[in-house]
Amino acid sequence: MRARSTLVLLLLLLATTASAQGTIRYLKLHAAALEGNLLGEPAEQEVAVYLPPGYADSGSVRYPVLYLLHGIGGGFTDWTKHWDLRGSMDALIASGTPPFLVVMPNGANRLGGGFYMDSPVSGGWETFLVRELVPRIDAEFRTIAAPASRGVAGHSMGGFGALRLGMRFPDLFGSVYAMSPCCLDLTDDIGHGNPEWRTALRFKEPADLGKAVQAGNFYPVAMIAISAALSPNRNKPPFYVDLPVRELRGELLPDDAVYEQWRAALPYSQLASHRANLLRLKAMAIDYGTSDQFAHIITATPEFSRELARLRIPHRLDVYAGDHREHIPRRLRTHVLPFFAGVFPR
Amino acid sequence: MRARSTLVLLLLLLATTASAQGTIRYLKLHAAALEGNLLGEPAEQEVAVYLPPGYADSGSVRYPVLYLLHGIGGGFTDWTKHWDLRGSMDALIASGTPPFLVVMPNGANRLGGGFYMDSPVSGGWETFLVRELVPRIDAEFRTIAAPASRGVAGHSMGGFGALRLGMRFPDLFGSVYAMSPCCLDLTDDIGHGNPEWRTALRFKEPADLGKAVQAGNFYPVAMIAISAALSPNRNKPPFYVDLPVRELRGELLPDDAVYEQWRAALPYSQLASHRANLLRLKAMAIDYGTSDQFAHIITATPEFSRELARLRIPHRLDVYAGDHREHIPRRLRTHVLPFFAGVFPR
Amino acid sequence: MRARSTLVLLLLLLATTASAQGTIRYLKLHAAALEGNLLGEPAEQEVAVYLPPGYADSGSVRYPVLYLLHGIGGGFTDWTKHWDLRGSMDALIASGTPPFLVVMPNGANRLGGGFYMDSPVSGGWETFLVRELVPRIDAEFRTIAAPASRGVAGHSMGGFGALRLGMRFPDLFGSVYAMSPCCLDLTDDIGHGNPEWRTALRFKEPADLGKAVQAGNFYPVAMIAISAALSPNRNKPPFYVDLPVRELRGELLPDDAVYEQWRAALPYSQLASHRANLLRLKAMAIDYGTSDQFAHIITATPEFSRELARLRIPHRLDVYAGDHREHIPRRLRTHVLPFFAGVFPR
Amino acid sequence: MRARSTLVLLLLLLATTASAQGTIRYLKLHAAALEGNLLGEPAEQEVAVYLPPGYADSGSVRYPVLYLLHGIGGGFTDWTKHWDLRGSMDALIASGTPPFLVVMPNGANRLGGGFYMDSPVSGGWETFLVRELVPRIDAEFRTIAAPASRGVAGHSMGGFGALRLGMRFPDLFGSVYAMSPCCLDLTDDIGHGNPEWRTALRFKEPADLGKAVQAGNFYPVAMIAISAALSPNRNKPPFYVDLPVRELRGELLPDDAVYEQWRAALPYSQLASHRANLLRLKAMAIDYGTSDQFAHIITATPEFSRELARLRIPHRLDVYAGDHREHIPRRLRTHVLPFFAGVFPR
Repeated sequence: MRARSTLVLLLLLLATTASAQGTIRYLKLHAAALEGNLLGEPAEQEVAVYLPPGYADSGSVRYPVLYLLHGIGGGFTDWTKHWDLRGSMDALIASGTPPFLVVMPNGANRLGGGFYMDSPVSGGWETFLVRELVPRIDAEFRTIAAPASRGVAGHSMGGFGALRLGMRFPDLFGSVYAMSPCCLDLTDDIGHGNPEWRTALRFKEPADLGKAVQAGNFYPVAMIAISAALSPNRNKPPFYVDLPVRELRGELLPDDAVYEQWRAALPYSQLASHRANLLRLKAMAIDYGTSDQFAHIITATPEFSRELARLRIPHRLDVYAGDHREHIPRRLRTHVLPFFAGVFPR
Repeated sequence: MRARSTLVLLLLLLATTASAQGTIRYLKLHAAALEGNLLGEPAEQEVAVYLPPGYADSGSVRYPVLYLLHGIGGGFTDWTKHWDLRGSMDALIASGTPPFLVVMPNGANRLGGGFYMDSPVSGGWETFLVRELVPRIDAEFRTIAAPASRGVAGHSMGGFGALRLGMRFPDLFGSVYAMSPCCLDLTDDIGHGNPEWRTALRFKEPADLGKAVQAGNFYPVAMIAISAALSPNRNKPPFYVDLPVRELRGELLPDDAVYEQWRAALPYSQLASHRANLLRLKAMAIDYGTSDQFAHIITATPEFSRELARLRIPHRLDVYAGDHREHIPRRLRTHVLPFFAGVFPR
Repeated sequence: MRARSTLVLLLLLLATTASAQGTIRYLKLHAAALEGNLLGEPAEQEVAVYLPPGYADSGSVRYPVLYLLHGIGGGFTDWTKHWDLRGSMDALIASGTPPFLVVMPNGANRLGGGFYMDSPVSGGWETFLVRELVPRIDAEFRTIAAPASRGVAGHSMGGFGALRLGMRFPDLFGSVYAMSPCCLDLTDDIGHGNPEWRTALRFKEPADLGKAVQAGNFYPVAMIAISAALSPNRNKPPFYVDLPVRELRGELLPDDAVYEQWRAALPYSQLASHRANLLRLKAMAIDYGTSDQFAHIITATPEFSRELARLRIPHRLDVYAGDHREHIPRRLRTHVLPFFAGVFPR
Repeated sequence: MRARSTLVLLLLLLATTASAQGTIRYLKLHAAALEGNLLGEPAEQEVAVYLPPGYADSGSVRYPVLYLLHGIGGGFTDWTKHWDLRGSMDALIASGTPPFLVVMPNGANRLGGGFYMDSPVSGGWETFLVRELVPRIDAEFRTIAAPASRGVAGHSMGGFGALRLGMRFPDLFGSVYAMSPCCLDLTDDIGHGNPEWRTALRFKEPADLGKAVQAGNFYPVAMIAISAALSPNRNKPPFYVDLPVRELRGELLPDDAVYEQWRAALPYSQLASHRANLLRLKAMAIDYGTSDQFAHIITATPEFSRELARLRIPHRLDVYAGDHREHIPRRLRTHVLPFFAGVFPR
């Protein structure tokens, strides 16, 4: 009997606590690293920050921070508007999880996204994140400014970004969660087998991109976007990119030099040389759904895990039934946010 | 302030609850399926059953059940004596997890273990488990006799068994966790490259096995044990097995017929034909440590995961820093038991 | 000095012999196995047969036979009209290779090709080949009617066919050479990541296929063609196929049942169950170019070789610089035809 | 009729030519790069050179050269004494192949072999080959001193050496053939799963090595030999090596630092960074038998081929039925030597 009444009491308490709500703060900052990019993207950036319930009243208490990166074609408000980041965090904290901050930067540009990489074309997105945003957040908020208490996660292009940041800046980020990460290796729909390269090869002027997007034609523009990150070429207006595919006798073939430049830069090929960094991570997780419409994610993610395993690098791979986006809110709540809650030191 | 006092109260309540202890019951049963095995193993078997705190007083309440399978060379009391199953379950339940039963059958024989498979040599271990033990447990205890509420886990040989049972009896088991599963594919130390096959090939009489074990020579006896499960041969006394390796001109070579009979029977090769069954599982997880002394586990487990991924079968792979046994108690507590707690319907 | 004059004499003799020319005979035959196919393809078939120089005058001499299968969108005269089969055979024989016959059947239909498989929709192409064509050739010509002296090769869809025939009919074919074989596994441009599935899903009537072809849109029609071979459905006019991809919320996703039906039928997945057959082959070779425009060929062929190797099945993989078609005549002459010359018993 | 009499004449001529025999010359040279090695191996080296029939009388004619590297535990005279290099070359040349030289250097030392690598412990074997032997051969004999006319092949440890030399010195070697190459990656019998690491770990003094060899215990000494090449340590007498495996609680575990140092140095891991070099090779072939007693060769070779394919590097993989050594003479004659005959420019 006692157990039961205890439970009732517990639930009651939880219910009470659950009513506490966190806050989303919007921060503007000037990103020096984005200045002068060839796409003409503004250096003025905005970022959303989730502050847990009680943040304002908690005196000198410091909190871990999760950086959360959105996907191509989306924006930093996706997390709050579509995927209920605040509701999930509030519920998690209400159920006893120690609170942490969540920082949601912008990664979108007119091509769909900058892949959180540095590029003379699309700008210094990586530099902006690691040199400007992280220090600014640590200055502005009461964070625990240590890698063990700083994580990075993202979805799709954001998962790609999270893995790259974790792999390259272990002094900054101690834990990584990549949700359905895109572009881990050069295969399937991002390999040269995608007939839409033909469209990308035929783009003549910036207006063509807009037309493609309006026609619901996602791939060609995304192909330009990745090229701006992986194979920028300042001398090739109007898009300033080399494409990894060429047309010969009417056929789409890999352009050897650019194709291999891409492959070498993608996360799969970067694993072996970043082993020491990856071993410094406290935790790394990757997931995807078995019906992801972006076929390369179904192919490249398990190969990425297998390569991590070959290099004896600890990680978790989570393969679930679902597609690219349908379970984002649920997985945030049941997997991603609890993952960091379990990793951040108490 | 209220949040803090709530927390104190919560901890207080938890502490109180935590003092409740579960019980280990030992059950004897006659395993008809083991009768007449050529190793002369007794059909009288014993099994340990963890009953959660309050089981005796909970009237008609029914509970999910986890079957937990030990490794080669070990025994069913490993869980309770070495790996603190009861303490972990008690703590988990005390912290709010809905309680479940844990059934720990014996899988040991004089060769070290029967691999939870049916064999004319080592006996009908699989049949015993699925046709005799499960019904008996459901009859004897207040279980929820449905696959969603019945899971199977195991370590090493027991992980092998758990995966096989989950793959073959989805009407019985709805969730599977394999800890450092052995023998998923024929490679490394269980492939023909292990020089200890030479010793196994030279065994003349049962006494030789004992001598090998006493000399701390694990592999040759284990090789006979797996052979008794995978390539039994009633006409070959005294061990009644075909070995998958032969000696030619002083060299160890695969014996083609037996080698491929082994490979075809091992879990990796069984995945494609069991896809429909595997999709019926509610959850499947596999883990191992990057320093496992059984080298094939480091090699075969990620390949197994990759094959699951190729077949688009949901699962979780968890690769951690550690060896074959050092983290068993901790992982039971932090991963395996919580996994089932999260899967069993409430 | 003597060596040099010998060489001159040799070259002289070779030059003389080289003037001897083989003959292409065209044979008509009624393919009972094609009767009643739902595409309305004629059961009247034609086949080209290369007869070596001297065939007419060689009395009762019997010859090995190579069956040569063309690719999708092509026809049986490709070998003679575009790829100089006769010239290459003549030169090879002139340089001392024992002569053999080459049989070039039709595999084309109004969808581009029947994949040399049996299907209620596209007809019994496999049955036609193995039950009707081979006996007819053996009856009509002085062949050595034994598997050691009968080989099968093909390009692209024909390489797919050659591998399938070798794997399934070792009593008939003793050696196999697959040039740039298509469709070994479900990946890249034939996986669900190809945006052209959208077009295939929207086909309404047969005329749409023609329009696609005329617009230079290869994939959607090829997708229907493979479906007619792998997932025919008599109850779905006008194309009588199930497609392995479906559209949901505007996204292309795998249709689980059909997708896995495809995968299971494709050669990669068929290897393990056909191991015994494959071991009976005297020789098997597979090649492809590193710039093949059909990206799945670059991905699936090495995986196919790796799976053969895992199953310890002898074979040769030859990876060369080039694309899908540019080197066909050269490779026929330098690799494919000499391969069979080396395999056929003298 | 004329064809037949031509053939008779041809055979007659060939028979005459076949009687011409090549010569094996033994050359002594001082290997400066081997001076001061810690094993005390002599810097005085011997090398066998096959000179084709007519070499002495052919005036200023220059010839291509094949370097042929023997395996661990063998010696440079294996080729001539056991494997009939001269007979095979003579027969090949007699049947019309343009002649070339074959240079067979020593790679043996008291540990079995130096792996054709530079090491402070076992000496500068690679430097000796590329800086001293090749120039000396080009000076001493009438060679065509250009990569297109210089090939390198080897068996087992020699295959390993051939691949490394081809990958690292494309300015020197234009073609590579690796027969059953050892040690391409760290797996199976050379991974930490081989119980013989225990023996290697317990070696106390040089005499122990001799005892192991005499007891027919191949692996422990070979393990020291590879360590001397891959993880030499001048400060650890008497063997001056770090081993990649350590013993903990009676178990053999990977020693992380040394284990990964090995892996990174082995050919599989070197492929991606040597892609540009590998593309400069005119031809590369690798073979092995499906019953190779060195299990890692069956595992690592197809993975090596798959990685080459992933990097789109042309090569040939030839998997045949047989073990590590039984077919060496036959494959030399039918595959290896004809391979170079086909590659060297005429």
